[in-house]
Amino acid sequence: MKRIKLVIAYDGTNYCGWQIQPNGVTVEEVLNKALTKLLKEEIVVIGASRTDSGVHALGNVAVFDTNTTIPPEKICYALNQQLPGDIRILESCEVSSEFHPRYCDTTKTYRYMISNRRIEIPTQRLYSHFVYFPLDVQAMKEAATYIEGEHDFKSFCSKRSQVENTVRTIYELTVEENCGMIEITIRGNGFLYNMVRIIVGTLIRVGTHMYPPEYVKTIIEAKDRKKAGPKVPAKGLTLVEIKYQ
Amino acid sequence: MKRIKLVIAYDGTNYCGWQIQPNGVTVEEVLNKALTKLLKEEIVVIGASRTDSGVHALGNVAVFDTNTTIPPEKICYALNQQLPGDIRILESCEVSSEFHPRYCDTTKTYRYMISNRRIEIPTQRLYSHFVYFPLDVQAMKEAATYIEGEHDFKSFCSKRSQVENTVRTIYELTVEENCGMIEITIRGNGFLYNMVRIIVGTLIRVGTHMYPPEYVKTIIEAKDRKKAGPKVPAKGLTLVEIKYQ
Repeated sequence: MKRIKLVIAYDGTNYCGWQIQPNGVTVEEVLNKALTKLLKEEIVVIGASRTDSGVHALGNVAVFDTNTTIPPEKICYALNQQLPGDIRILESCEVSSEFHPRYCDTTKTYRYMISNRRIEIPTQRLYSHFVYFPLDVQAMKEAATYIEGEHDFKSFCSKRSQVENTVRTIYELTVEENCGMIEITIRGNGFLYNMVRIIVGTLIRVGTHMYPPEYVKTIIEAKDRKKAGPKVPAKGLTLVEIKYQ
Repeated sequence: MKRIKLVIAYDGTNYCGWQIQPNGVTVEEVLNKALTKLLKEEIVVIGASRTDSGVHALGNVAVFDTNTTIPPEKICYALNQQLPGDIRILESCEVSSEFHPRYCDTTKTYRYMISNRRIEIPTQRLYSHFVYFPLDVQAMKEAATYIEGEHDFKSFCSKRSQVENTVRTIYELTVEENCGMIEITIRGNGFLYNMVRIIVGTLIRVGTHMYPPEYVKTIIEAKDRKKAGPKVPAKGLTLVEIKYQ
């Protein structure tokens, strides 16, 4: 029995997120079916990040156990033959049988794209959030510096979450603008439920001058979801990478 | 009666191209219906470029005549309310009643995207052509220099075309690679049927070392479609801009 780790990219547009659920097709479900068909064993993957409905991924991670004789590095190629074009396995390799993709120290990187122009470009609409009013990127950059570091991010966590410890460390939060596309990259040791999308919604309020940049400090201190900005749509969000220590 | 010029962007994925035809929905048809509904007059647009099925646009152009009292510059906003998210009018303005979008001296710019990596990224699949084998971008750049200038491009024209004069001028043809995405930009005074897609198919053969770069000169001189590379898929192609002199 071998444990195989997969690095998975997907276009989340047509999926109800990662985790199997009754209301629609999920990435986890498609992956289990494709692996079961390919390896002729009942396969159940364990995913690292249960991305929400509509969120994209460049580097989600999952593991499964198998008796297959296919060399671990070749599984990605064989599996991609079984998968629809909106899911691709970028890498496959063998890992220790103790390796669990969630119970590990990790650094995760997310990216959020904001299309900031007068009229939306149709070919960008599936992978970015369109904002009509001009955003002050300099103010957003300044606000981002207050989010970096170790903080209690309770204000940036959806109420549905039942996590007790809401302290996380953000190693880096960058805001870059290029030809009307604002790219926000955030790297940290863990993220609360909807945390990235609430941080981005808050940065957009800074970008419209509804909040001054330093008000982000007040939001963090309040430990109150109501103080932060709204949650932005899923389609602008991509899970870029999960790094294991 | 005013003549209005529109600059139109669209995601060609779900359209059978620009021109009205019986087999499926086209951009022209959707635009005529939306304008007719908005302006409460029977509107028929004249398009500048009849892009093929699956080709995208950032700057196609169309004109129509109307008696509307909506200010010309506001028509784009009102019209976008009537259009699906995969078609957007970026600009609207009044032009002379003699202005015809096709019978004019123009410079057109096209872009073609090639995703050149081991395994395709799902979020890039709708807007680029995936090529598995590593392409030699330097060789493609060299081949591009032989295509620039005034030439008889008969070898790069699909047989279906009945154009008599196949001489065109390419002002610029650039090949740039960034993170596994090869971006080919081509600017010229006119393009034959499928010319951009056949040029890119030929450059890909140069990139795989099937053709040496200077073989492009032989292809041009042959004036024979069979000598050039294959036509690449539509989904990688975007009509970026049409400039009127």
